[in-house]
Amino acid sequence: MARRLVVAVAQLTDAHRSEIRAAATRHGFEALFFDAVEDALPAAEAAEVLLTDSPRLAQAARALRWVCTPAAGVDAFVVPGALPRGAMLSNSSGAYGVTIAEHIVMVTLELMRRQRDYDAIVARRAWRRDLAVRSILGCRTLILGTGDIGREAAVRLRAFRPARLVGLNRSGYNPGGLFDRCIAPEALDDALPEADLVVLCLPATEATRRLLDARRLSMLHEGAILVNVGRGSAVDQSALERLLRAGRLSAALDVFEEEPLPPGHGLWSCPNLLITPHVAGNMTLPYTLDRIAALFLEDFDNYCAGRPLARRVDPAKGY
Amino acid sequence: MARRLVVAVAQLTDAHRSEIRAAATRHGFEALFFDAVEDALPAAEAAEVLLTDSPRLAQAARALRWVCTPAAGVDAFVVPGALPRGAMLSNSSGAYGVTIAEHIVMVTLELMRRQRDYDAIVARRAWRRDLAVRSILGCRTLILGTGDIGREAAVRLRAFRPARLVGLNRSGYNPGGLFDRCIAPEALDDALPEADLVVLCLPATEATRRLLDARRLSMLHEGAILVNVGRGSAVDQSALERLLRAGRLSAALDVFEEEPLPPGHGLWSCPNLLITPHVAGNMTLPYTLDRIAALFLEDFDNYCAGRPLARRVDPAKGY
Repeated sequence: MARRLVVAVAQLTDAHRSEIRAAATRHGFEALFFDAVEDALPAAEAAEVLLTDSPRLAQAARALRWVCTPAAGVDAFVVPGALPRGAMLSNSSGAYGVTIAEHIVMVTLELMRRQRDYDAIVARRAWRRDLAVRSILGCRTLILGTGDIGREAAVRLRAFRPARLVGLNRSGYNPGGLFDRCIAPEALDDALPEADLVVLCLPATEATRRLLDARRLSMLHEGAILVNVGRGSAVDQSALERLLRAGRLSAALDVFEEEPLPPGHGLWSCPNLLITPHVAGNMTLPYTLDRIAALFLEDFDNYCAGRPLARRVDPAKGY
Repeated sequence: MARRLVVAVAQLTDAHRSEIRAAATRHGFEALFFDAVEDALPAAEAAEVLLTDSPRLAQAARALRWVCTPAAGVDAFVVPGALPRGAMLSNSSGAYGVTIAEHIVMVTLELMRRQRDYDAIVARRAWRRDLAVRSILGCRTLILGTGDIGREAAVRLRAFRPARLVGLNRSGYNPGGLFDRCIAPEALDDALPEADLVVLCLPATEATRRLLDARRLSMLHEGAILVNVGRGSAVDQSALERLLRAGRLSAALDVFEEEPLPPGHGLWSCPNLLITPHVAGNMTLPYTLDRIAALFLEDFDNYCAGRPLARRVDPAKGY
């Protein structure tokens, strides 16, 4: 019986599927494709390799050796018991930096340039031009998380001539020299009061949980802008809502403590807040899908050759 | 009697006024400041130098030698009879590139990422994530006008890795090598069908009038994006509206053939169109005001030393 690869990523095009099928055949695998998790369940039972964002499929796969998620965040997979014993986990880090960085720049400028206020003026067909605006030029920028997303954001923000780009990661190393400097979490308290713009692109881990708690949020200066494209767990959402309602901060949130954001939640009507429904990095951009397929194929080659996976996730670290 | 400088730019801060007053005193000028054109009229009669965007003030100044406008566009000043005989005209080109470039990137991403459609989804507290989006990455970009605005836009767009950046100017020269190549107007017909994004940052001159007429607009491919931050006269607005209504193009317009856009105008309700009320480059950004003051002071020194003005406008060219 051929070794089995089960792919359950509805968005993949026929071209991606052909490419994956060809690689599978080359390596002695049969590749089975499904759009719905439900339909994939029976086939997954005998799968050695999975490409899916569904922990249910992984759990059903009794012979699983490796599951690759098309997502960058792996929080759903690193809870105890989510993976069969001995199975490796990898992610698609590297597929989302470009699109999420574009989202970061867009929402930052929308907030700085009062774009939603101008929308309201335009909606009543008025011609008012006197709203005070701000610029990324000269903006003291702090990027929490210097992985693929933080780096792509830094490259783009740099072109707008911020006063400085400070990155935060676990060790304080400066990847590729893309930042003016990088700091470790111990230095966060010193960095927050000096930031005009704080961008969060952090995974959901124990270490990032409520990294911006009420105390730290209150250290941001009046008028600071907060953008979260990582995971909602990194911010104390209630404390943030209070500061937004008080007019102390403005924010753009793409991720939330609970998703979908419940219909009755206070954030829906919160002023100084730009909400997007977790779309900063999704699979409706063809480039992202191309990257997901290419990164999987790279690691599929690694796997079949017995080499380490390039994007293997350490469940203890959570990324 | 001291030589007279009249400044009528309401947005200038006290700090800017002090700086200008000090320079005036240094050069044997008295500096008079007004917020309203009406109030400045009597004082302007004896002005040798004016800093104003009001042609009325310039016309009232019988002894005028030089008028500097805080704007980049000088269309209001280059109509026949707008200036007393022998008076020089300069503009504030160099003050708006940064803010208008930020606007260009913002509205381009808003259109590509369906931000207004996501706004509508969020407004009804829904959680839909399946809208197809696009990216500046790989985007074939054509920038009409390679002055301060076009160049600052090129620097920022470059960081998003477009497939190519083509500029258009009168001679086809490539300023600072910022573009992949530059073309002269004769090559525009060849460039339009190959552009995914067309950005207009052109002054209103005879040469730019309806540069994008109905014929040329129809050469854009389906789905192309048009951004106009220059002057409304460069585009056949009715032809553009038809293409937007047909879903052939999407556009972000900050400038219009008639401003304010009349309340009954069809564009207000036009789909696939993002309207802003001529705010891409206005004086509500502190940096822009700082630049206006600094550029004026530079040319005021030039003027007083008998040197040529750095930003003198050729009325025949219109910029």
